[in-house]
Amino acid sequence: MDKQYLLAPGPTPIPPEVLLTMAGPIVHHRAPVYERKLEEVREGLKYLFQTKKEVLIFASSGTGAMEGAVTNTLCAGDKAIVVEGGKFGERWANICKAYGVKAQVLPVEWGRSIDPALIDQALKEDRSIKAVFTQATETSTGVVYPIKEIAEIVTRYPGTLIVVDAISHLGAVELPMDAWKLDIVVAGSQKALMLPPGLAFAALSDKAWDFVEKSTLPKFYFDFKKELKNLTQNQSAYTPAVSLIMGLAESLKKIKEEGLENIFARHARLAKATREAMLALGLKLYAPQAHSNAVTAVVAPPGVDGQKVVKILRDKHHLTIAGGQDQAKGKIFRIAHLGYVDKFDIIMAVAAVEMTLKELGYVGEMGKGVRAAMEVLIDGK
Amino acid sequence: MDKQYLLAPGPTPIPPEVLLTMAGPIVHHRAPVYERKLEEVREGLKYLFQTKKEVLIFASSGTGAMEGAVTNTLCAGDKAIVVEGGKFGERWANICKAYGVKAQVLPVEWGRSIDPALIDQALKEDRSIKAVFTQATETSTGVVYPIKEIAEIVTRYPGTLIVVDAISHLGAVELPMDAWKLDIVVAGSQKALMLPPGLAFAALSDKAWDFVEKSTLPKFYFDFKKELKNLTQNQSAYTPAVSLIMGLAESLKKIKEEGLENIFARHARLAKATREAMLALGLKLYAPQAHSNAVTAVVAPPGVDGQKVVKILRDKHHLTIAGGQDQAKGKIFRIAHLGYVDKFDIIMAVAAVEMTLKELGYVGEMGKGVRAAMEVLIDGK
Repeated sequence: MDKQYLLAPGPTPIPPEVLLTMAGPIVHHRAPVYERKLEEVREGLKYLFQTKKEVLIFASSGTGAMEGAVTNTLCAGDKAIVVEGGKFGERWANICKAYGVKAQVLPVEWGRSIDPALIDQALKEDRSIKAVFTQATETSTGVVYPIKEIAEIVTRYPGTLIVVDAISHLGAVELPMDAWKLDIVVAGSQKALMLPPGLAFAALSDKAWDFVEKSTLPKFYFDFKKELKNLTQNQSAYTPAVSLIMGLAESLKKIKEEGLENIFARHARLAKATREAMLALGLKLYAPQAHSNAVTAVVAPPGVDGQKVVKILRDKHHLTIAGGQDQAKGKIFRIAHLGYVDKFDIIMAVAAVEMTLKELGYVGEMGKGVRAAMEVLIDGK
Repeated sequence: MDKQYLLAPGPTPIPPEVLLTMAGPIVHHRAPVYERKLEEVREGLKYLFQTKKEVLIFASSGTGAMEGAVTNTLCAGDKAIVVEGGKFGERWANICKAYGVKAQVLPVEWGRSIDPALIDQALKEDRSIKAVFTQATETSTGVVYPIKEIAEIVTRYPGTLIVVDAISHLGAVELPMDAWKLDIVVAGSQKALMLPPGLAFAALSDKAWDFVEKSTLPKFYFDFKKELKNLTQNQSAYTPAVSLIMGLAESLKKIKEEGLENIFARHARLAKATREAMLALGLKLYAPQAHSNAVTAVVAPPGVDGQKVVKILRDKHHLTIAGGQDQAKGKIFRIAHLGYVDKFDIIMAVAAVEMTLKELGYVGEMGKGVRAAMEVLIDGK
């Protein structure tokens, strides 16, 4: 018996009804039945992004939409700020570099958050900065950045966009695009959307669309303007990932049914239970504060290799979480509470971590972590 | 009752066992179980492409890999030849334009093939041409180009690549990459591979990889070199479309089991049956010769709107084929015999076309087309 459990920060588990929808016979993307489905999807995405703007859909990994956010708004030689406090901040910097955008990196110590005042200062010093690229949740460290505060600052600079990679964040943690005046929000299918990887999303404010008009960086597949034109006719510029779109319609329906507020509350509760459980085990959180409710990064106890924790969990207990990346490799392990996850998933994950640490000689009373999680979870749904 | 049938040139029908594989619980892409699957997939793709080189996989529509074939091998200002005899030839030209590649278009009348001597002449006149971009099957017209002959010519020019969009061709019609010395072959999942849309493929010759070293066009998501490095470690640069990869392993297994030669023979037989049936009905083929065995384009009879044929087939008979695009819109309809299609699919499609044309007042003896198809199909498997 090897019943498998998945609690990694993407891909995340998929509801069986969504899997079955995607297993239906394939539909032609120029047929009315598909177009009606896409119309439904457009509405559902607007609800999820909390925006009145259209949400573009691409058949690609989330990185494709990140690339598009750069190439559709900027010109070669443009200046930008990148908040870099982890692996995905680095990605923004690498994309900028690939396209000749001069990225000024604001380095953030891994596991820490950013002081928005630093962004204000950088923008004040150089009014020609065209965009601020950041994550909402930095998946590699489990940190949530103060996007609302950052956006309040950037909004004061009419020549600067605030571009948010919300791939591991949207649909798990609050991020109302229009209310916070975010210029571009990027998301992916394999996180809180409860779908397989393969779809990327991007929504743009009016201000961002103005930038699109002036952008001269080359693009073709990730051409936002072309995609918008097609989308408003319930089509796409190129053959869409039909089966994923059908699944998306299902998952968006589930999201609407549960309601964003309830979803955010659930993620907050699951995240709190995970954190309390780890602390009860005497473990430290990688982020001293600013914990994202999407994923919890835990410091491996002294003498214990974080990668080994992940490996034992996977190979012996058939439960997949994530290890640390790059500079955090071996130092941490990451438990996601993201998407189709409920209280019992967390209890199970905590129990598995406890058993694994016991096996690794990290002595402690078994059940302490589970108990702490249960105490948080008993009051929630 | 509305039993649905799909005979369009992509997406194509998917075998139920492939659909069910993709409906399994999601697997993490850094897990050994996924890596083993990807290793299997790499071998299967080499068999399909008839190459010893690695076949790169992207989470995207086929167009993404077409874009990558341009941006990974060329520099801004480079010259290229584009064979343009339909909608997908135009796409090569548009991609070149987006990236500042000077494309010399060799126009081919829609429905006709290209004389390879024209390519030789163009290359002789300008030795600085870096690449020849063409389709193998031009899906919009149902024409197959003489790729073997074109490649023989281009091979004589050491500074020029032959780049083939085989999206609607590979796995349906012969195209041995290594034997014909093709430099880049691009494919997509939603055609002969019997999968949903969402995966694109590209394989490169040593000559093409040399071009990659010198290419300066910007790229990020479709970075071939980065993807190759990851692929040889059974990984991908960005989160892969896990469920489609699992389906791909299944469909490649089916392809291996049937065997490429048998698959090509089946497609040839189904294509012949379709053509004979249409001719027996007194209809004309859009391509006077050089018919692709992937898709048959049929001229709508005088006074009959091709789009109406498609609409009636879909809305009344629940059978989806494709109409004409752009200049061929209304003039033709296209029946695909591509991928998971057998003799009875063709008989059904022909019967549906006959009934539809009868309803549209195109008088003829019913069953003539079906009989002609049966006569071709009775000898095959």
